[in-house]
Amino acid sequence: MIKVVIIGSGNLAFHLTNECLKSNAINLVQVYSRNIENIEYLKSKTSITHNLKNLKEADIYIIAVSDNAIADVSSQLMLQNKLVVHTSGAIGLNELKSQSNKGVFYPLQSFSKSKKIDFTTIPICIEAENKKDLKILEKLAKLVSNKVYYISSDQRKSLHVSAVFVNNFVNHMYYIGNEICNSNNIPFEILAPLINETSKKIESLTPFEAQTGPAKRNDTKTIEEHLSSLNKNQQDIYKLITKSIQELYGKKL
Amino acid sequence: MIKVVIIGSGNLAFHLTNECLKSNAINLVQVYSRNIENIEYLKSKTSITHNLKNLKEADIYIIAVSDNAIADVSSQLMLQNKLVVHTSGAIGLNELKSQSNKGVFYPLQSFSKSKKIDFTTIPICIEAENKKDLKILEKLAKLVSNKVYYISSDQRKSLHVSAVFVNNFVNHMYYIGNEICNSNNIPFEILAPLINETSKKIESLTPFEAQTGPAKRNDTKTIEEHLSSLNKNQQDIYKLITKSIQELYGKKL
Repeated sequence: MIKVVIIGSGNLAFHLTNECLKSNAINLVQVYSRNIENIEYLKSKTSITHNLKNLKEADIYIIAVSDNAIADVSSQLMLQNKLVVHTSGAIGLNELKSQSNKGVFYPLQSFSKSKKIDFTTIPICIEAENKKDLKILEKLAKLVSNKVYYISSDQRKSLHVSAVFVNNFVNHMYYIGNEICNSNNIPFEILAPLINETSKKIESLTPFEAQTGPAKRNDTKTIEEHLSSLNKNQQDIYKLITKSIQELYGKKL
Repeated sequence: MIKVVIIGSGNLAFHLTNECLKSNAINLVQVYSRNIENIEYLKSKTSITHNLKNLKEADIYIIAVSDNAIADVSSQLMLQNKLVVHTSGAIGLNELKSQSNKGVFYPLQSFSKSKKIDFTTIPICIEAENKKDLKILEKLAKLVSNKVYYISSDQRKSLHVSAVFVNNFVNHMYYIGNEICNSNNIPFEILAPLINETSKKIESLTPFEAQTGPAKRNDTKTIEEHLSSLNKNQQDIYKLITKSIQELYGKKL
Protein backbone atom coordinates (compact mmCIF):
# COMPACT_ATOMS: atom_id res chain seq x y z
CA MET A 1 0.00 0.00 0.00
CA ILE A 2 1.24 3.47 -0.86
CA LYS A 3 0.46 5.95 1.90
CA VAL A 4 -0.68 9.30 0.55
CA VAL A 5 -1.50 12.69 2.07
CA ILE A 6 -3.35 15.17 -0.15
CA ILE A 7 -2.88 18.87 0.49
CA GLY A 8 -5.67 20.93 -1.03
CA SER A 9 -9.40 20.83 -1.68
CA GLY A 10 -9.82 22.38 -5.15
CA ASN A 11 -11.04 20.65 -8.30
CA LEU A 12 -7.98 18.47 -8.82
CA ALA A 13 -7.59 17.67 -5.10
CA PHE A 14 -11.26 16.64 -5.04
CA HIS A 15 -10.88 14.19 -7.94
CA LEU A 16 -7.52 12.86 -6.69
CA THR A 17 -9.02 12.27 -3.25
CA ASN A 18 -11.83 10.24 -4.81
CA GLU A 19 -9.37 8.17 -6.85
CA CYS A 20 -7.21 7.41 -3.81
CA LEU A 21 -10.26 6.40 -1.76
CA LYS A 22 -11.39 4.09 -4.56
CA SER A 23 -8.07 2.24 -4.90
CA ASN A 24 -7.28 -0.81 -2.78
CA ALA A 25 -3.57 -0.24 -3.25
CA ILE A 26 -3.56 3.35 -2.00
CA ASN A 27 -3.96 4.30 1.64
CA LEU A 28 -5.18 7.90 1.79
CA VAL A 29 -4.06 8.68 5.33
CA GLN A 30 -5.03 12.35 5.44
CA VAL A 31 -6.42 15.34 3.52
CA TYR A 32 -5.46 18.92 4.39
CA SER A 33 -7.42 22.07 3.60
CA ARG A 34 -6.89 25.62 4.86
CA ASN A 35 -10.69 25.73 5.22
CA ILE A 36 -11.66 22.60 7.09
CA GLU A 37 -15.31 22.97 6.00
CA ASN A 38 -14.27 22.12 2.43
CA ILE A 39 -13.29 18.61 3.52
CA GLU A 40 -15.74 17.91 6.35
CA TYR A 41 -17.48 15.46 4.00
CA LEU A 42 -14.35 13.25 4.18
CA LYS A 43 -14.39 12.92 7.98
CA SER A 44 -15.79 9.40 7.97
CA LYS A 45 -13.35 8.21 5.30
CA THR A 46 -9.97 9.61 6.31
CA SER A 47 -8.21 11.97 8.71
CA ILE A 48 -8.71 15.66 7.92
CA THR A 49 -6.75 18.68 9.12
CA HIS A 50 -6.31 22.40 8.51
CA ASN A 51 -2.90 22.53 10.19
CA LEU A 52 0.19 21.82 8.08
CA LYS A 53 2.15 21.04 11.26
CA ASN A 54 -0.18 18.10 12.00
CA LEU A 55 0.48 16.09 8.86
CA LYS A 56 0.61 12.34 9.32
CA GLU A 57 3.29 9.92 8.20
CA ALA A 58 3.03 8.99 4.48
CA ASP A 59 5.09 7.96 1.44
CA ILE A 60 3.93 10.79 -0.81
CA TYR A 61 2.58 14.23 -0.01
CA ILE A 62 0.63 15.61 -2.95
CA ILE A 63 0.29 19.39 -3.04
CA ALA A 64 -2.79 20.14 -5.15
CA VAL A 65 -3.23 23.86 -4.52
CA SER A 66 -3.26 26.84 -6.90
CA ASP A 67 0.04 27.57 -8.66
CA ASN A 68 0.84 30.69 -6.69
CA ALA A 69 0.34 28.94 -3.33
CA ILE A 70 2.76 26.07 -4.05
CA ALA A 71 5.93 27.83 -2.84
CA ASP A 72 4.25 29.07 0.35
CA VAL A 73 2.54 25.78 1.25
CA SER A 74 5.63 23.68 0.50
CA SER A 75 7.88 25.96 2.58
CA GLN A 76 5.70 25.25 5.63
CA LEU A 77 6.06 21.48 5.43
CA MET A 78 8.15 20.06 8.28
CA LEU A 79 9.02 16.86 6.49
CA GLN A 80 12.36 15.23 5.88
CA ASN A 81 13.25 12.19 3.82
CA LYS A 82 9.74 12.29 2.41
CA LEU A 83 8.56 12.71 -1.15
CA VAL A 84 6.66 15.94 -1.72
CA VAL A 85 5.14 16.52 -5.15
CA HIS A 86 3.07 19.24 -6.74
CA THR A 87 0.48 18.76 -9.46
CA SER A 88 0.99 21.81 -11.64
CA GLY A 89 1.78 21.99 -15.33
CA ALA A 90 3.24 25.48 -15.07
CA ILE A 91 5.54 25.19 -12.05
CA GLY A 92 9.07 23.75 -12.04
CA LEU A 93 10.22 21.03 -9.66
CA ASN A 94 12.50 23.45 -7.87
CA GLU A 95 9.74 25.82 -6.93
CA LEU A 96 8.86 23.34 -4.21
CA LYS A 97 10.39 24.85 -1.06
CA SER A 98 10.16 21.85 1.25
CA GLN A 99 13.29 20.28 2.78
CA SER A 100 12.23 16.89 1.49
CA ASN A 101 12.65 15.11 -1.85
CA LYS A 102 10.82 16.77 -4.67
CA GLY A 103 8.68 15.53 -7.47
CA VAL A 104 5.84 16.38 -9.84
CA PHE A 105 2.61 14.47 -10.42
CA TYR A 106 0.77 16.39 -13.15
CA PRO A 107 -2.51 14.97 -14.46
CA LEU A 108 -3.05 16.67 -17.82
CA GLN A 109 -6.78 17.36 -17.86
CA SER A 110 -9.19 20.17 -17.17
CA PHE A 111 -11.11 19.47 -13.98
CA SER A 112 -14.38 20.76 -12.62
CA LYS A 113 -15.94 19.34 -9.46
CA SER A 114 -19.34 18.90 -11.02
CA LYS A 115 -18.12 16.80 -13.91
CA LYS A 116 -17.27 13.12 -13.50
CA ILE A 117 -13.87 12.16 -14.83
CA ASP A 118 -12.52 8.78 -15.90
CA PHE A 119 -9.09 9.07 -14.31
CA THR A 120 -7.76 5.97 -16.06
CA THR A 121 -7.64 7.86 -19.38
CA ILE A 122 -5.89 10.96 -18.01
CA PRO A 123 -2.19 11.22 -18.89
CA ILE A 124 -0.07 11.65 -15.76
CA CYS A 125 3.27 13.42 -16.26
CA ILE A 126 5.76 12.55 -13.57
CA GLU A 127 9.18 13.87 -12.59
CA ALA A 128 11.44 13.34 -9.57
CA GLU A 129 14.96 14.14 -8.37
CA ASN A 130 16.07 10.53 -8.19
CA LYS A 131 15.21 7.13 -9.63
CA LYS A 132 13.79 5.73 -6.41
CA ASP A 133 11.26 8.51 -6.09
CA LEU A 134 10.42 8.29 -9.78
CA LYS A 135 9.61 4.60 -9.29
CA ILE A 136 7.29 5.39 -6.36
CA LEU A 137 5.57 8.10 -8.38
CA GLU A 138 5.25 5.79 -11.36
CA LYS A 139 3.67 3.14 -9.15
CA LEU A 140 1.15 5.62 -7.78
CA ALA A 141 0.41 7.06 -11.24
CA LYS A 142 -0.18 3.61 -12.70
CA LEU A 143 -2.68 2.84 -9.94
CA VAL A 144 -4.91 5.68 -11.12
CA SER A 145 -4.15 5.97 -14.85
CA ASN A 146 -3.18 3.86 -17.86
CA LYS A 147 -1.09 6.66 -19.35
CA VAL A 148 2.04 7.65 -17.50
CA TYR A 149 4.82 9.79 -19.04
CA TYR A 150 8.24 10.93 -17.81
CA ILE A 151 8.23 14.66 -18.51
CA SER A 152 10.97 17.08 -17.39
CA SER A 153 10.19 20.50 -15.91
CA ASP A 154 11.16 22.21 -19.18
CA GLN A 155 9.00 19.85 -21.22
CA ARG A 156 6.12 20.28 -18.81
CA LYS A 157 6.19 24.03 -19.25
CA SER A 158 5.95 23.60 -23.03
CA LEU A 159 3.20 21.05 -22.59
CA HIS A 160 1.31 23.54 -20.46
CA VAL A 161 1.56 26.28 -23.12
CA SER A 162 0.43 23.75 -25.69
CA ALA A 163 -2.54 22.85 -23.48
CA VAL A 164 -3.49 26.53 -23.33
CA PHE A 165 -3.81 26.51 -27.13
CA VAL A 166 -5.71 23.23 -27.49
CA ASN A 167 -7.95 23.77 -24.46
CA ASN A 168 -8.32 27.41 -23.33
CA PHE A 169 -7.99 29.00 -26.76
CA VAL A 170 -10.08 26.33 -28.48
CA ASN A 171 -12.82 27.00 -25.92
CA HIS A 172 -12.61 30.70 -26.72
CA MET A 173 -13.13 29.85 -30.41
CA TYR A 174 -16.25 27.95 -29.30
CA TYR A 175 -17.29 31.04 -27.35
CA ILE A 176 -17.00 33.29 -30.41
CA GLY A 177 -18.87 30.75 -32.55
CA ASN A 178 -21.62 30.72 -29.92
CA GLU A 179 -21.67 34.52 -29.80
CA ILE A 180 -22.12 34.73 -33.60
CA CYS A 181 -24.94 32.15 -33.46
CA ASN A 182 -26.71 34.00 -30.65
CA SER A 183 -26.61 37.30 -32.55
CA ASN A 184 -28.31 35.60 -35.50
CA ASN A 185 -30.89 33.43 -33.72
CA ILE A 186 -29.15 30.23 -34.72
CA PRO A 187 -29.13 27.35 -32.21
CA PHE A 188 -25.47 26.70 -31.33
CA GLU A 189 -26.24 22.97 -31.12
CA ILE A 190 -26.19 22.86 -34.96
CA LEU A 191 -22.41 23.12 -34.64
CA ALA A 192 -22.04 20.27 -32.12
CA PRO A 193 -21.37 17.49 -34.69
CA LEU A 194 -18.79 19.68 -36.47
CA ILE A 195 -17.05 20.46 -33.17
CA ASN A 196 -17.02 16.79 -32.33
CA GLU A 197 -15.70 15.76 -35.75
CA THR A 198 -12.98 18.44 -35.63
CA SER A 199 -11.57 17.05 -32.39
CA LYS A 200 -11.87 13.43 -33.55
CA LYS A 201 -10.25 14.08 -36.92
CA ILE A 202 -6.81 14.62 -35.40
CA GLU A 203 -6.85 11.11 -33.97
CA SER A 204 -6.18 9.87 -37.52
CA LEU A 205 -4.71 12.94 -39.24
CA THR A 206 -2.12 15.50 -38.10
CA PRO A 207 -3.60 18.99 -37.56
CA PHE A 208 -1.56 20.09 -40.59
CA GLU A 209 -3.33 17.50 -42.75
CA ALA A 210 -6.73 18.09 -41.18
CA GLN A 211 -6.88 21.81 -41.96
CA THR A 212 -9.69 22.96 -44.25
CA GLY A 213 -11.49 26.26 -44.88
CA PRO A 214 -11.21 29.59 -46.71
CA ALA A 215 -7.86 30.56 -45.15
CA LYS A 216 -6.17 27.37 -46.33
CA ARG A 217 -7.80 27.64 -49.78
CA ASN A 218 -6.89 31.35 -49.84
CA ASP A 219 -10.52 32.05 -50.72
CA THR A 220 -10.26 35.83 -50.33
CA LYS A 221 -13.85 36.51 -51.41
CA THR A 222 -15.27 34.40 -48.57
CA ILE A 223 -12.72 35.81 -46.12
CA GLU A 224 -13.80 39.38 -46.96
CA GLU A 225 -17.48 38.48 -46.61
CA HIS A 226 -16.85 36.83 -43.26
CA LEU A 227 -14.92 39.84 -41.98
CA SER A 228 -17.73 42.20 -42.95
CA SER A 229 -20.16 40.38 -40.66
CA LEU A 230 -17.95 40.39 -37.54
CA ASN A 231 -17.42 42.86 -34.72
CA LYS A 232 -14.00 44.45 -34.13
CA ASN A 233 -12.70 41.89 -31.64
CA GLN A 234 -13.91 38.96 -33.77
CA GLN A 235 -12.36 40.57 -36.86
CA ASP A 236 -8.96 40.97 -35.18
CA ILE A 237 -8.91 37.31 -34.19
CA TYR A 238 -10.25 36.17 -37.58
CA LYS A 239 -7.57 38.16 -39.43
CA LEU A 240 -4.65 37.02 -37.32
CA ILE A 241 -5.48 33.30 -37.40
CA THR A 242 -6.32 33.47 -41.12
CA LYS A 243 -2.92 35.09 -41.77
CA SER A 244 -1.20 32.39 -39.74
CA ILE A 245 -2.95 29.62 -41.72
CA GLN A 246 -2.25 31.34 -45.05
CA GLU A 247 1.45 31.64 -44.23
CA LEU A 248 1.57 28.03 -43.14
CA TYR A 249 0.17 26.86 -46.47
CA GLY A 250 2.28 29.30 -48.44
CA LYS A 251 -0.43 31.71 -49.52
CA LYS A 252 -0.36 35.41 -48.84
CA LEU A 253 -3.37 37.76 -48.84
CA MET B 1 -39.21 7.94 -54.45
CA ILE B 2 -37.45 11.27 -54.76
CA LYS B 3 -35.45 11.47 -57.98
CA VAL B 4 -32.09 13.14 -57.51
CA VAL B 5 -29.26 14.26 -59.81
CA ILE B 6 -25.95 15.10 -58.16
CA ILE B 7 -23.66 17.59 -59.89
CA GLY B 8 -20.08 17.31 -58.68
CA SER B 9 -17.54 14.73 -57.55
CA GLY B 10 -15.71 16.40 -54.65
CA ASN B 11 -15.75 15.33 -51.00
CA LEU B 12 -19.33 16.32 -50.28
CA ALA B 13 -20.66 15.03 -53.64
CA PHE B 14 -18.92 11.72 -52.94
CA HIS B 15 -20.58 11.28 -49.54
CA LEU B 16 -23.97 12.51 -50.78
CA THR B 17 -23.81 10.07 -53.69
CA ASN B 18 -23.18 7.23 -51.25
CA GLU B 19 -26.10 8.27 -49.04
CA CYS B 20 -28.49 8.48 -52.01
CA LEU B 21 -27.40 5.05 -53.26
CA LYS B 22 -27.96 3.59 -49.79
CA SER B 23 -31.50 4.93 -49.36
CA ASN B 24 -34.50 2.96 -50.62
CA ALA B 25 -36.57 6.14 -50.83
CA ILE B 26 -34.12 8.04 -53.03
CA ASN B 27 -33.60 7.32 -56.70
CA LEU B 28 -30.20 8.66 -57.74
CA VAL B 29 -30.84 8.94 -61.44
CA GLN B 30 -27.53 10.51 -62.46
CA VAL B 31 -24.20 11.93 -61.33
CA TYR B 32 -22.35 14.64 -63.27
CA SER B 33 -18.66 15.44 -63.16
CA ARG B 34 -16.59 17.68 -65.43
CA ASN B 35 -14.00 14.90 -65.33
CA ILE B 36 -15.82 11.71 -66.08
CA GLU B 37 -12.95 9.59 -64.67
CA ASN B 38 -13.84 10.85 -61.20
CA ILE B 39 -17.18 9.05 -61.35
CA GLU B 40 -16.36 6.02 -63.52
CA TYR B 41 -16.67 3.90 -60.37
CA LEU B 42 -20.42 4.72 -60.33
CA LYS B 43 -21.09 3.38 -63.83
CA SER B 44 -22.69 0.15 -62.66
CA LYS B 45 -24.88 1.94 -60.10
CA THR B 46 -26.28 4.98 -61.87
CA SER B 47 -26.06 7.04 -65.03
CA ILE B 48 -22.97 9.23 -65.28
CA THR B 49 -22.26 12.21 -67.53
CA HIS B 50 -19.77 15.01 -68.08
CA ASN B 51 -22.21 17.09 -70.13
CA LEU B 52 -24.55 19.49 -68.33
CA LYS B 53 -26.84 19.48 -71.37
CA ASN B 54 -27.50 15.78 -70.95
CA LEU B 55 -28.99 15.88 -67.47
CA LYS B 56 -31.86 13.48 -66.86
CA GLU B 57 -35.27 14.22 -65.45
CA ALA B 58 -35.31 14.52 -61.63
CA ASP B 59 -37.08 16.21 -58.70
CA ILE B 60 -33.97 17.79 -57.23
CA TYR B 61 -30.66 18.75 -58.80
CA ILE B 62 -27.98 19.06 -56.14
CA ILE B 63 -25.00 21.21 -57.10
CA ALA B 64 -22.10 20.07 -54.92
CA VAL B 65 -19.19 21.92 -56.50
CA SER B 66 -16.70 24.45 -55.11
CA ASP B 67 -18.20 27.79 -54.06
CA ASN B 68 -16.72 29.78 -56.91
CA ALA B 69 -18.08 27.36 -59.55
CA ILE B 70 -21.71 27.51 -58.36
CA ALA B 71 -22.75 30.55 -60.42
CA ASP B 72 -21.10 29.21 -63.57
CA VAL B 73 -22.43 25.66 -63.28
CA SER B 74 -25.96 26.77 -62.37
CA SER B 75 -26.08 29.24 -65.28
CA GLN B 76 -25.49 26.34 -67.67
CA LEU B 77 -28.46 24.30 -66.46
CA MET B 78 -31.25 24.10 -69.03
CA LEU B 79 -33.93 23.21 -66.52
CA GLN B 80 -37.31 24.78 -65.93
CA ASN B 81 -39.84 24.06 -63.20
CA LYS B 82 -37.21 21.99 -61.48
CA LEU B 83 -35.67 22.44 -58.05
CA VAL B 84 -31.97 23.26 -58.19
CA VAL B 85 -30.10 23.52 -54.90
CA HIS B 86 -26.53 24.19 -53.90
CA THR B 87 -24.78 22.79 -50.84
CA SER B 88 -22.64 25.70 -49.71
CA GLY B 89 -22.58 27.44 -46.35
CA ALA B 90 -21.10 30.61 -47.76
CA ILE B 91 -23.25 31.23 -50.85
CA GLY B 92 -26.69 32.88 -50.91
CA LEU B 93 -29.72 31.32 -52.54
CA ASN B 94 -29.74 33.99 -55.24
CA GLU B 95 -26.25 33.22 -56.42
CA LEU B 96 -27.79 30.24 -58.20
CA LYS B 97 -28.12 31.40 -61.82
CA SER B 98 -30.44 28.69 -63.13
CA GLN B 99 -33.88 29.51 -64.52
CA SER B 100 -35.46 26.98 -62.21
CA ASN B 101 -36.64 27.11 -58.59
CA LYS B 102 -33.81 27.65 -56.16
CA GLY B 103 -32.95 26.12 -52.85
CA VAL B 104 -30.10 25.28 -50.49
CA PHE B 105 -29.23 21.92 -48.99
CA TYR B 106 -26.25 22.57 -46.70
CA PRO B 107 -24.89 19.68 -44.63
CA LEU B 108 -22.88 21.32 -41.87
CA GLN B 109 -19.87 19.06 -41.53
CA SER B 110 -16.27 18.88 -42.68
CA PHE B 111 -15.88 16.14 -45.27
CA SER B 112 -12.90 14.20 -46.50
CA LYS B 113 -13.25 11.26 -48.90
CA SER B 114 -11.05 8.98 -46.85
CA LYS B 115 -13.07 9.37 -43.66
CA LYS B 116 -16.33 7.56 -43.14
CA ILE B 117 -19.18 9.79 -42.03
CA ASP B 118 -22.41 8.94 -40.23
CA PHE B 119 -24.72 11.15 -42.26
CA THR B 120 -27.65 10.66 -39.88
CA THR B 121 -25.94 12.88 -37.28
CA ILE B 122 -25.07 15.71 -39.69
CA PRO B 123 -27.28 18.81 -39.40
CA ILE B 124 -28.80 19.73 -42.77
CA CYS B 125 -29.70 23.38 -43.20
CA ILE B 126 -32.37 23.87 -45.85
CA GLU B 127 -33.84 26.90 -47.58
CA ALA B 128 -36.15 27.33 -50.60
CA GLU B 129 -38.07 30.03 -52.41
CA ASN B 130 -41.49 28.52 -51.70
CA LYS B 131 -43.17 26.17 -49.25
CA LYS B 132 -43.65 23.34 -51.72
CA ASP B 133 -39.94 23.17 -52.51
CA LEU B 134 -39.08 23.49 -48.84
CA LYS B 135 -41.25 20.43 -48.14
CA ILE B 136 -39.49 18.40 -50.86
CA LEU B 137 -36.10 19.45 -49.49
CA GLU B 138 -37.19 18.61 -45.96
CA LYS B 139 -38.31 15.17 -47.10
CA LEU B 140 -34.96 14.53 -48.79
CA ALA B 141 -33.00 15.90 -45.81
CA LYS B 142 -34.90 13.71 -43.36
CA LEU B 143 -34.10 10.64 -45.46
CA VAL B 144 -30.38 11.14 -44.87
CA SER B 145 -30.24 12.96 -41.51
CA ASN B 146 -32.04 13.17 -38.16
CA LYS B 147 -31.25 16.86 -37.80
CA VAL B 148 -32.90 19.24 -40.25
CA TYR B 149 -33.04 23.02 -39.75
CA TYR B 150 -34.69 25.85 -41.68
CA ILE B 151 -31.90 28.40 -42.06
CA SER B 152 -32.15 31.56 -44.17
CA SER B 153 -29.33 32.75 -46.45
CA ASP B 154 -28.34 35.43 -43.94
CA GLN B 155 -28.34 32.98 -41.06
CA ARG B 156 -26.38 30.47 -43.11
CA LYS B 157 -23.65 33.00 -43.77
CA SER B 158 -23.32 33.64 -40.04
CA LEU B 159 -23.37 29.93 -39.36
CA HIS B 160 -20.55 29.52 -41.85
CA VAL B 161 -18.40 32.17 -40.14
CA SER B 162 -19.16 30.50 -36.84
CA ALA B 163 -18.07 27.16 -38.31
CA VAL B 164 -14.77 28.74 -39.38
CA PHE B 165 -14.09 29.59 -35.72
CA VAL B 166 -15.14 26.25 -34.21
CA ASN B 167 -13.61 24.10 -36.96
CA ASN B 168 -10.86 25.81 -39.02
CA PHE B 169 -9.50 28.01 -36.25
CA VAL B 170 -9.81 25.31 -33.60
CA ASN B 171 -7.79 23.03 -35.87
CA HIS B 172 -5.14 25.73 -36.19
CA MET B 173 -4.94 25.86 -32.38
CA TYR B 174 -4.33 22.10 -32.48
CA TYR B 175 -1.64 22.74 -35.10
CA ILE B 176 0.18 25.23 -32.86
CA GLY B 177 -0.13 22.89 -29.87
CA ASN B 178 1.38 20.13 -32.00
CA GLU B 179 4.15 22.45 -33.20
CA ILE B 180 5.10 23.33 -29.59
CA CYS B 181 5.13 19.64 -28.62
CA ASN B 182 7.31 18.72 -31.61
CA SER B 183 9.87 21.41 -30.75
CA ASN B 184 10.17 19.95 -27.27
CA ASN B 185 10.12 16.22 -28.00
CA ILE B 186 6.75 15.75 -26.37
CA PRO B 187 4.33 13.23 -27.92
CA PHE B 188 1.27 15.22 -29.04
CA GLU B 189 -0.93 12.25 -28.07
CA ILE B 190 -0.56 13.32 -24.40
CA LEU B 191 -2.98 16.12 -25.26
CA ALA B 192 -5.61 13.88 -26.90
CA PRO B 193 -7.75 13.35 -23.76
CA LEU B 194 -7.70 17.08 -23.01
CA ILE B 195 -8.72 17.90 -26.58
CA ASN B 196 -11.52 15.38 -26.34
CA GLU B 197 -12.73 16.66 -22.96
CA THR B 198 -12.64 20.28 -24.19
CA SER B 199 -15.02 19.50 -27.04
CA LYS B 200 -17.28 17.34 -24.86
CA LYS B 201 -17.48 19.87 -22.06
CA ILE B 202 -19.61 22.27 -24.09
CA GLU B 203 -22.32 19.63 -24.45
CA SER B 204 -23.23 20.35 -20.83
CA LEU B 205 -21.79 23.83 -20.24
CA THR B 206 -21.83 26.98 -22.38
CA PRO B 207 -18.37 27.97 -23.70
CA PHE B 208 -18.57 30.98 -21.38
CA GLU B 209 -18.98 28.70 -18.36
CA ALA B 210 -16.44 26.15 -19.60
CA GLN B 211 -13.55 28.61 -19.90
CA THR B 212 -10.51 27.96 -17.69
CA GLY B 213 -6.83 28.90 -17.78
CA PRO B 214 -4.36 31.70 -17.04
CA ALA B 215 -6.14 34.31 -19.21
CA LYS B 216 -9.44 33.85 -17.39
CA ARG B 217 -7.68 33.83 -13.99
CA ASN B 218 -5.62 36.82 -15.10
CA ASP B 219 -2.53 34.90 -14.01
CA THR B 220 -0.03 37.36 -15.48
CA LYS B 221 3.04 35.50 -14.19
CA THR B 222 2.11 32.34 -16.13
CA ILE B 223 1.10 34.37 -19.18
CA GLU B 224 4.52 36.09 -19.25
CA GLU B 225 6.31 32.76 -18.86
CA HIS B 226 4.29 31.22 -21.66
CA LEU B 227 4.99 34.15 -23.98
CA SER B 228 8.72 33.88 -23.39
CA SER B 229 8.75 30.31 -24.73
CA LEU B 230 6.86 31.03 -27.97
CA ASN B 231 7.93 32.18 -31.43
CA LYS B 232 6.69 35.48 -32.86
CA ASN B 233 3.62 34.10 -34.66
CA GLN B 234 2.60 31.98 -31.66
CA GLN B 235 3.12 35.01 -29.37
CA ASP B 236 0.88 37.24 -31.50
CA ILE B 237 -1.93 34.68 -31.42
CA TYR B 238 -1.42 33.96 -27.70
CA LYS B 239 -1.54 37.67 -26.85
CA LEU B 240 -4.64 38.46 -28.90
CA ILE B 241 -6.75 35.55 -27.65
CA THR B 242 -5.57 36.11 -24.07
CA LYS B 243 -6.62 39.76 -24.34
CA SER B 244 -10.02 38.73 -25.72
CA ILE B 245 -10.57 36.29 -22.83
CA GLN B 246 -9.39 38.82 -20.23
CA GLU B 247 -11.77 41.45 -21.56
CA LEU B 248 -14.61 38.97 -21.58
CA TYR B 249 -14.09 38.15 -17.92
CA GLY B 250 -13.52 41.79 -16.98
CA LYS B 251 -9.81 41.66 -16.30
CA LYS B 252 -7.25 43.82 -18.04
CA LEU B 253 -3.52 43.13 -18.32
